[in-house]
Amino acid sequence: MTFTPTAYDPYDFANRRHIGPSPAEMADMLKAVGVPSLDALIDETVPASIRQSIPLGWAPLSEHDLLARMRRVASRNKVLTSLIGQGYYGTVTPPAIQRNILENPAWYTAYTPYQPEIAQGRLEALLNYQTMVADLTGLEIANASLLDEATAAAEAMTMAERVAKSKAKAFFVDENCHPQTIAVIQTRALALGLEVIVGAPEALVPEQVFGAIFQYPGTWGHVHDLTSGIAALHAAKAVAIVATDLLALTMLKEPGAMGADIAIGSSQRFGVPMGYGGPHAAFFACKDEHKRNMPGRIVGVSIDARGNKAYRLALQTREQHIRREKATSNVCTAQALLAVMASFYAVFHGPVGLRAIAERVHSLTVRLAKALRDAGATLPPKAFFDTITVEVGVGQAGILAAARLEGLNFRKVGSDHVGISLDETSDEDVLRRVLRAFGIADAPPVGAELGFPAELLRTSQYLTHPVFHMNRAESEMMRYMRRLSDRDLALDRAMIPLGSCTMKLNAAAEMMPITWPEFGALHPFVPADQALGYREAIEDLTAKLCEITGYDAFSMQPNSGAQGEYAGLLTILAYHRARGDKDRKVCLIPVSAHGTNPASAQMAGMEVVVVKSMPNGDVDLEDFREKATAAGGRLAACMITYPSTHGVFEETVKEVCKITHDHGGQVYIDGANMNALVGLVKPGEIGGDVSHLNLHKTFAIPHGGGGPGMGPIGVRAHLAPHLPGHPETGGAEGPVSAAPFGSASILLISWAYCLMMGGEGLTQATRVAILNANYIASRLKGDYPILFMGNKGRVAHECILDTRPFAESGVTVDDIAKRLIDNGFHAPTMSWPVAGTLMVEPTESETKAEIDRFITALLAIRAEIRAVEAGEISSEDSPLRHAPHTVNDLVADWDRKYSREQGCFPPGAFRVDKYWPPIGRVDNVWGDRNLTCICPPVESYMEAAE
Amino acid sequence: MTFTPTAYDPYDFANRRHIGPSPAEMADMLKAVGVPSLDALIDETVPASIRQSIPLGWAPLSEHDLLARMRRVASRNKVLTSLIGQGYYGTVTPPAIQRNILENPAWYTAYTPYQPEIAQGRLEALLNYQTMVADLTGLEIANASLLDEATAAAEAMTMAERVAKSKAKAFFVDENCHPQTIAVIQTRALALGLEVIVGAPEALVPEQVFGAIFQYPGTWGHVHDLTSGIAALHAAKAVAIVATDLLALTMLKEPGAMGADIAIGSSQRFGVPMGYGGPHAAFFACKDEHKRNMPGRIVGVSIDARGNKAYRLALQTREQHIRREKATSNVCTAQALLAVMASFYAVFHGPVGLRAIAERVHSLTVRLAKALRDAGATLPPKAFFDTITVEVGVGQAGILAAARLEGLNFRKVGSDHVGISLDETSDEDVLRRVLRAFGIADAPPVGAELGFPAELLRTSQYLTHPVFHMNRAESEMMRYMRRLSDRDLALDRAMIPLGSCTMKLNAAAEMMPITWPEFGALHPFVPADQALGYREAIEDLTAKLCEITGYDAFSMQPNSGAQGEYAGLLTILAYHRARGDKDRKVCLIPVSAHGTNPASAQMAGMEVVVVKSMPNGDVDLEDFREKATAAGGRLAACMITYPSTHGVFEETVKEVCKITHDHGGQVYIDGANMNALVGLVKPGEIGGDVSHLNLHKTFAIPHGGGGPGMGPIGVRAHLAPHLPGHPETGGAEGPVSAAPFGSASILLISWAYCLMMGGEGLTQATRVAILNANYIASRLKGDYPILFMGNKGRVAHECILDTRPFAESGVTVDDIAKRLIDNGFHAPTMSWPVAGTLMVEPTESETKAEIDRFITALLAIRAEIRAVEAGEISSEDSPLRHAPHTVNDLVADWDRKYSREQGCFPPGAFRVDKYWPPIGRVDNVWGDRNLTCICPPVESYMEAAE
Repeated sequence: MTFTPTAYDPYDFANRRHIGPSPAEMADMLKAVGVPSLDALIDETVPASIRQSIPLGWAPLSEHDLLARMRRVASRNKVLTSLIGQGYYGTVTPPAIQRNILENPAWYTAYTPYQPEIAQGRLEALLNYQTMVADLTGLEIANASLLDEATAAAEAMTMAERVAKSKAKAFFVDENCHPQTIAVIQTRALALGLEVIVGAPEALVPEQVFGAIFQYPGTWGHVHDLTSGIAALHAAKAVAIVATDLLALTMLKEPGAMGADIAIGSSQRFGVPMGYGGPHAAFFACKDEHKRNMPGRIVGVSIDARGNKAYRLALQTREQHIRREKATSNVCTAQALLAVMASFYAVFHGPVGLRAIAERVHSLTVRLAKALRDAGATLPPKAFFDTITVEVGVGQAGILAAARLEGLNFRKVGSDHVGISLDETSDEDVLRRVLRAFGIADAPPVGAELGFPAELLRTSQYLTHPVFHMNRAESEMMRYMRRLSDRDLALDRAMIPLGSCTMKLNAAAEMMPITWPEFGALHPFVPADQALGYREAIEDLTAKLCEITGYDAFSMQPNSGAQGEYAGLLTILAYHRARGDKDRKVCLIPVSAHGTNPASAQMAGMEVVVVKSMPNGDVDLEDFREKATAAGGRLAACMITYPSTHGVFEETVKEVCKITHDHGGQVYIDGANMNALVGLVKPGEIGGDVSHLNLHKTFAIPHGGGGPGMGPIGVRAHLAPHLPGHPETGGAEGPVSAAPFGSASILLISWAYCLMMGGEGLTQATRVAILNANYIASRLKGDYPILFMGNKGRVAHECILDTRPFAESGVTVDDIAKRLIDNGFHAPTMSWPVAGTLMVEPTESETKAEIDRFITALLAIRAEIRAVEAGEISSEDSPLRHAPHTVNDLVADWDRKYSREQGCFPPGAFRVDKYWPPIGRVDNVWGDRNLTCICPPVESYMEAAE
Repeated sequence: MTFTPTAYDPYDFANRRHIGPSPAEMADMLKAVGVPSLDALIDETVPASIRQSIPLGWAPLSEHDLLARMRRVASRNKVLTSLIGQGYYGTVTPPAIQRNILENPAWYTAYTPYQPEIAQGRLEALLNYQTMVADLTGLEIANASLLDEATAAAEAMTMAERVAKSKAKAFFVDENCHPQTIAVIQTRALALGLEVIVGAPEALVPEQVFGAIFQYPGTWGHVHDLTSGIAALHAAKAVAIVATDLLALTMLKEPGAMGADIAIGSSQRFGVPMGYGGPHAAFFACKDEHKRNMPGRIVGVSIDARGNKAYRLALQTREQHIRREKATSNVCTAQALLAVMASFYAVFHGPVGLRAIAERVHSLTVRLAKALRDAGATLPPKAFFDTITVEVGVGQAGILAAARLEGLNFRKVGSDHVGISLDETSDEDVLRRVLRAFGIADAPPVGAELGFPAELLRTSQYLTHPVFHMNRAESEMMRYMRRLSDRDLALDRAMIPLGSCTMKLNAAAEMMPITWPEFGALHPFVPADQALGYREAIEDLTAKLCEITGYDAFSMQPNSGAQGEYAGLLTILAYHRARGDKDRKVCLIPVSAHGTNPASAQMAGMEVVVVKSMPNGDVDLEDFREKATAAGGRLAACMITYPSTHGVFEETVKEVCKITHDHGGQVYIDGANMNALVGLVKPGEIGGDVSHLNLHKTFAIPHGGGGPGMGPIGVRAHLAPHLPGHPETGGAEGPVSAAPFGSASILLISWAYCLMMGGEGLTQATRVAILNANYIASRLKGDYPILFMGNKGRVAHECILDTRPFAESGVTVDDIAKRLIDNGFHAPTMSWPVAGTLMVEPTESETKAEIDRFITALLAIRAEIRAVEAGEISSEDSPLRHAPHTVNDLVADWDRKYSREQGCFPPGAFRVDKYWPPIGRVDNVWGDRNLTCICPPVESYMEAAE
């Protein structure tokens, strides 16, 4: 007797978990769109001429099989105790932070806090971070983090060049800086035509430079007072930068007290696992006078419509997406999730705990140095915090091997020294093992000796704000984390329809491996044979990305999309240079490009030429041809986005590529919209020479509230030799990031995503992303004009709603965005790529029910606009202007011209499960006028009972 | 140069993370209490005569060192693929469920949903569970889970005895039942004097029994139609029980369709890891006519004050804490967290997915059976679902060894068979490995053969409710889980001051190891050499619990506190029996005892004699002596709680023990209040012979919204030989639970707690728990009478607030409890141990700030009561009666006699972070009158836009 098997695969991750609409829902949606099938829609949308002929090949894994594979891969990594230092240190992530932040979708699925009313939780956490950094460095203002220590150093250099009154064109780099920091500075300087002088601090001639960077403590452990060197720089009108270490600064005199203008470094060792290189948050602090030149995002304090305290991103007009070809930096990316972790680490320990940790590390190091000296060893650093360097002569290999037998990695320094950096995880046992590697049997007794001069002992207070003096019981900490996360609206509660940001599902199975110690505890510079698991993951991910893009090679180094663009352009320039084409500097960029494109080109030292758009949003082919011809032998590259930032598959893309190639240029295809291409179109096949992929968009890395991200670049074979190199792994070119594989640990998320989706699943995801966008366009087009449809009346994976027609009645795009909060939605992308519009990208992960809820909300908003247009209510009095509505509005006397019900429960809002914004609309002008970027003195973190 | 080390240990888990008040806060609190020091308070509170002389000895581990140790211990467990079956099966926990339920404090720290207004989320999840069980078993009503399959079977037997119209006194047990099920039934029956007949179904003589239990599919795999057997039972007015398997029931004809009255089983394989025995949720379903006799908690549907749908626990008056000596069952404990997981597993897969999983398992089993038969093997089960038994003769040891070489565990059946149960994790690879163990090279082709007769194929629908037909995209599922958890108030948002329930911190570090596969994936019956990690953990935990309690041995088998009591009493009875004292059946229990005490005594077949209390709450020593004397040679035991359930350290405890011992009785000290003793007093030293410990109270296992729990029992040496045994591990006595170590995996939580706290930390926790309670008593005693203080005016670790004086003005204890919700608090224990009171237990984990917030709330409530007393407002009109206030109240027209502000933001409530109950006050009477215990037909799970 047989039975009829059920035609349903419960383990089909792509179609049952990742892709939102069910087959039945898709049928309904296709009907609304007016096409007979998904195939037909794709045919109408994606030009046949560019479609790939061979489907993506690999089979999918179930969640269960994925985790089993990940465990096997993890077991190939060997977790030794790495005492390599060099910017990466062992740390203890408090378990409550791991579980309640790093493993909590309320935190990791959040978007960048551009809409402050629904982001007060992470804004507060980031403000804590800024306060912590400013306090510890002794400077007045700090940003909300940068990508890594090395890029922060490069940003400090370019900022110094902007603010220095010195006219010198050279930059001095202390040889005590980490090698990767020096190398990234050199890469950046080379592109910008700045001279870099590397040398001992004593060799600095202040008059020759516009700025200098010192490292304190130095990469080999040295601790020197920098006060006089900084004073000499200032006398020469140059800027002084200090690369430093937050833990050391709990004991050591702070850079601010030495007169430093800027301090940078990594906050990794504040509870963020090393993760084979990242992600971690770099910090950046400076004097108040320079704040408007500081790179990166800055959280500030303002007030809301009721005058209550409200956090928001300050000085947003500096962000590069509105500056285009005037851009000077493209680092507007933060490492928000990691900065949040580091700030909570400081809240968990408070100043007393941090100091105790530092003292413990320092005391162990002092004992280690004493034991080695007693045994006759020579240690170059006379003064040190946690790192010593030992002269070992020809015994270097032997000592390194002996250390490995003890389960330890030392740092290989030159050919005759080894470096040892102790850290928070070091204990008596580690000390004994280190000494055994040197054949020393006994550790010196515990003491309270200082390893540096008393004058360098820090005397100033830090972390005096009440938030760092909360009761540190876990119950209290857990509740504080929960309260902050509850203030925010993230993907775990609602769709985030952000155009160009591809806020898709970040599946639990994808996130699990990254917190396994086999992946988290690896130092980026461990010997290759200790990282075979990572190698397998990176190689397989590379192979899959090559298949997806049609490129021949990938660099995993860039740790953000903008870094990817920059690295891709450097690769192009290196290629031209290698062929003797030194003058090829012109980069053609359509006016509709992402703001990061021109910024990256500027950073790469290219000359940006903007190409016009046609009225339909396409690149103006004639203008393009003209400008390419004009550039002629100076044409380096064009940068295009495909499908375009207007959300359309331009038919002319191949022609654009041909023109560029005909003039000897290289084609950079921005991968921001790759979610509309995977499985359908390969950029490498339609003419692209290089692309970056935003793994945090298309490949399921969560946005983390504004970072981390990964922006690896794919290139055709001829460009492969010119990809970024790294001091630790070699290569002809310089590095763009601190670690060889960027934020390596989160590559596992994208790899897991590819493995579980399979080639077919990825392709279906692309198709459904296009369906979802076209469904929204079809449902809304009667009420909101849709800009830039293709010639068949279709959009790609996103659609642009025009709200400019409502301006006449006084309703702004802001009103609509804020009113959506009342419905429980994050606003779409506002005023980009066209001012006065909303760009909506639903992604494939949203279900029809959630999309319908969003459509319901937008239609109800349209009805409210109509009431304004009809004169039934003024825009000032309308619920649109008073949005978002808060519980405070409900409790207070109600003098509005609409009901409480209409104000708070517009169609689409949940009733029982409604999200209530903690504040009303934020006053941005007030905030910029009264700029405060550290925790305000009177705080109510523990928001007490009245 | 030296420095002064910071006197602060950031890794001191006990004093920096677990214990709430900081040293500075404690100083303030001692001042408020009016004692010079904590030592002095303890001296005033805990009688010197009972204090332990030697402090607890072991040193604490930091969180980091704990996790490192746990990893080493985990690596000692060997994770093979266990095909042992016998009630435990491999399963795939959907990662989103693991992360968002099992690893989410919003779910695991919740309390039992006695306060429905703040528990709508888990009540909905449990209602889904009941609906799922009722549907799959084909019965009308199901409860919210029981402890494990074996105890559920025993409960079914006693229920059958209660409801059967047959007067027979024997119970029939199908020999196809799992051995542990049979053994637990026998244990239970022996105590109750019921006869158990075990045999083949054909041997059943219906007229001889009041009921019978069959297993379907049977333990060896057999699948038989039970319809005629059940009909015969009914003809004899006996009750038919079927132990069954939810996954099998997606394909097999359901027990309801065969006429069964009751169905029980385990829902472990619905996504809950095996965990070396538990915890998992057992299910229990029955016909509607028997519902008022069904054991366990039942979620029902009612309405709130506005007439909106509201969930709540139905038929609560059946719960044992109000029945005392009339109790017939003490299983009012559910496995809520695990039932929630299983219900989400069903929601994730829906009927189609569950069926597909079942078909996949079944098809693999059919192919396995075919291959074995083709190879000449004899398989007793002709019809089967997922389990086969193979005759292997003298080859048994060889086959078992060959299986282990393939990484497989088979079941050893008798001396010449092996059992193989396939499961959700089985795949082609597993099939091939199984066959290789038999020397068979090839697997038969994939097909759609049925392994059982077509008549047994299920034809009825199941899981037709919309919740099981939600879109199963992970985004949607994740948001559903988030929405439900947001409706509930758990420890991650606020203190839960429940007297006697010890809702202390469940630290993240304690929770992490339980989801590691090395602990989760172990079958409870694996060979001992595969569970060396568990052995190490259990042995070390046992040693520490012995040191803490002063007992000599522990049984880890009881998986709830009530089970522990029951097991302890059985141990006492077995001891008496072994000495020939068969008539010792009298158990003295003070009137103030936990309701589970008399219930356990009844279940153990003892004769309960209630002892009076003195006006001050102490045991009436004279009455005790009198009743002990009266019992004389029939005295089996006394059961006391220490400190008493009135929250007082009675000075007379040693005298009570002495009297009991003088009359030949044994002393059972209930460990419910162990949180007031650890490190100060050892029950084994003050006269106790046996105690259970509620590891889910004192030892940091989270409550999980109403389970899991663990109730191991400690005994003095003379009782050790009489502790529960188990068919798999031996022992003279019968088992009380299905697995030898109960819910073994959560023992790791308590072990981690003991390891991180250290002996000194545990002692300090006890002291601070007493301080916190006395601080509350001191602050509130001017406004609320405090019942039962010790002779120095001190309470122990909890205090009882008398609210009866307010009754005159019409304010009830309910009003106060519900008004606390407006302040964001779970109510204290209501009307227990004295009607009209609130019992408050803050535990050591709450900080002064949170306790002060609670005090502020209670003082504000007292002020509102005074307004009623003064006639300023009637109790009906007061905010007390309208509490809790909801957003619906705020939005609606306001006709109250107090302001919205007063109603919604009483002192103590957070403003920005306020918890809003999803419903108003629940109407319990309506709910019991209109009993509905499955998902109501018109549901709004996806609570759509209007």
